Amino acid sequence: MKKIILLRHGQSTWNKENRFTGWTDVALTEQGRQEARQAGRLIKEQGLVFSKAFTSYLSRAVQTLHLVLEELDQEWIEVQKTWRLNEKHYGILQGLNKAETTAKYGANQVKKWRRGYDCAPPALDPDDNRNPYFDVRYQNVPLAYLPRTESLKDTVERILPYWQERIFPLLEREQNLLVVAHGNSLRAILKHVKNISDEEITELNLPTGIPYVLEFDNTLYLTRDYFLGDPKEVQKRAEAVARQADK
Amino acid sequence: MKKIILLRHGQSTWNKENRFTGWTDVALTEQGRQEARQAGRLIKEQGLVFSKAFTSYLSRAVQTLHLVLEELDQEWIEVQKTWRLNEKHYGILQGLNKAETTAKYGANQVKKWRRGYDCAPPALDPDDNRNPYFDVRYQNVPLAYLPRTESLKDTVERILPYWQERIFPLLEREQNLLVVAHGNSLRAILKHVKNISDEEITELNLPTGIPYVLEFDNTLYLTRDYFLGDPKEVQKRAEAVARQADK
Repeated sequence: MKKIILLRHGQSTWNKENRFTGWTDVALTEQGRQEARQAGRLIKEQGLVFSKAFTSYLSRAVQTLHLVLEELDQEWIEVQKTWRLNEKHYGILQGLNKAETTAKYGANQVKKWRRGYDCAPPALDPDDNRNPYFDVRYQNVPLAYLPRTESLKDTVERILPYWQERIFPLLEREQNLLVVAHGNSLRAILKHVKNISDEEITELNLPTGIPYVLEFDNTLYLTRDYFLGDPKEVQKRAEAVARQADK
Repeated sequence: MKKIILLRHGQSTWNKENRFTGWTDVALTEQGRQEARQAGRLIKEQGLVFSKAFTSYLSRAVQTLHLVLEELDQEWIEVQKTWRLNEKHYGILQGLNKAETTAKYGANQVKKWRRGYDCAPPALDPDDNRNPYFDVRYQNVPLAYLPRTESLKDTVERILPYWQERIFPLLEREQNLLVVAHGNSLRAILKHVKNISDEEITELNLPTGIPYVLEFDNTLYLTRDYFLGDPKEVQKRAEAVARQADK
């Protein structure tokens, strides 16, 4: 039996301030660091040794992964970072407070931007200094690939090539892989792996800091998937995320 | 001008207890973490963006690198970890207190083990549980390569293939690289790069947490090499290392 564990990063400073984050690079809060360590301990109880771990170019995911590996005593494993696992790009909403955005644009419009599968917020201007083009970390990414806004559909299409080409095929020869990323990038993976419809996927709320296990048989068919840890705690965190609109 | 920055990890729990560490995987102390962050700030003042960073399979080096990258806001860069950058293997001395070892074997013998270029401490028994063969992180390393003790000469010979094949040639197309490792693995690199004699190299004491810059011209000749930071602080730390026999 082979396993891929998915983990959403813990609370960031902008989660706490209830701001749209997207590709903005903000740090974990102390609570977020504790969530990461707790996730590490839950994974450790499974007694898994990972061959490789994957994360995004964003510090809140990288830091979460580092804390998990520290708890696991597996800081020596290979880590691959990729812009393709970044959070959904939120266009001009990045940096805005969610409540203020709702007051300005109305609840309906904001719900569409946040939950419409094929609906993207207005794009950043090309000369906006938040355009990823100006960020040195994306200098080797073809300009045509760099988003200035994204729908969840766009996020899925960005992530799938990496999942299909770099992560999933490794299971042919490896036993356990770890992916630490973001609410929407993990949603994109689950949509693909579990074949979830465009409508249903927008209602799926992954809690922060709770490891999600995908089990595959030796022919790489998905046989089981579940959260680690106390089911009540999982439920509580998922509801908190749904309420807070913390994507 | 191209740069490789070498950095020795900050204080570990066994440095603090004055024990021979070698390949034993011990964590940084709080002081060690602060030294790492301070090194990160010194490097940040140089305004460098790194293409890649390298470190060993040992947590004290990995953690130091992570803290440096956090200070630099460059947590997204690619990190390559390798057993070849590990500290010198100290054989049966690993875990022993340095003062006790001196009392038991005599100062002369201990000095030879620590400073004789071609002199290795007695090897671990093959069935000693400290034999790297039993550690999952080395499972993909050919058994014939795994040491049960090392002289500094052995350490040099282990590291050079990686330096010559994986690190140095990257400068052909990259601008700045970062290597975070250990007292003896960095000594091995400096011996090679600066062509230091077998006798002289054993007297070279790299202080912990002080970045050391190697500057190369576009034909990859070494043009300059120096420590970052206040020269008095550098001197003080190097002397502390020499006194404490903190290898």
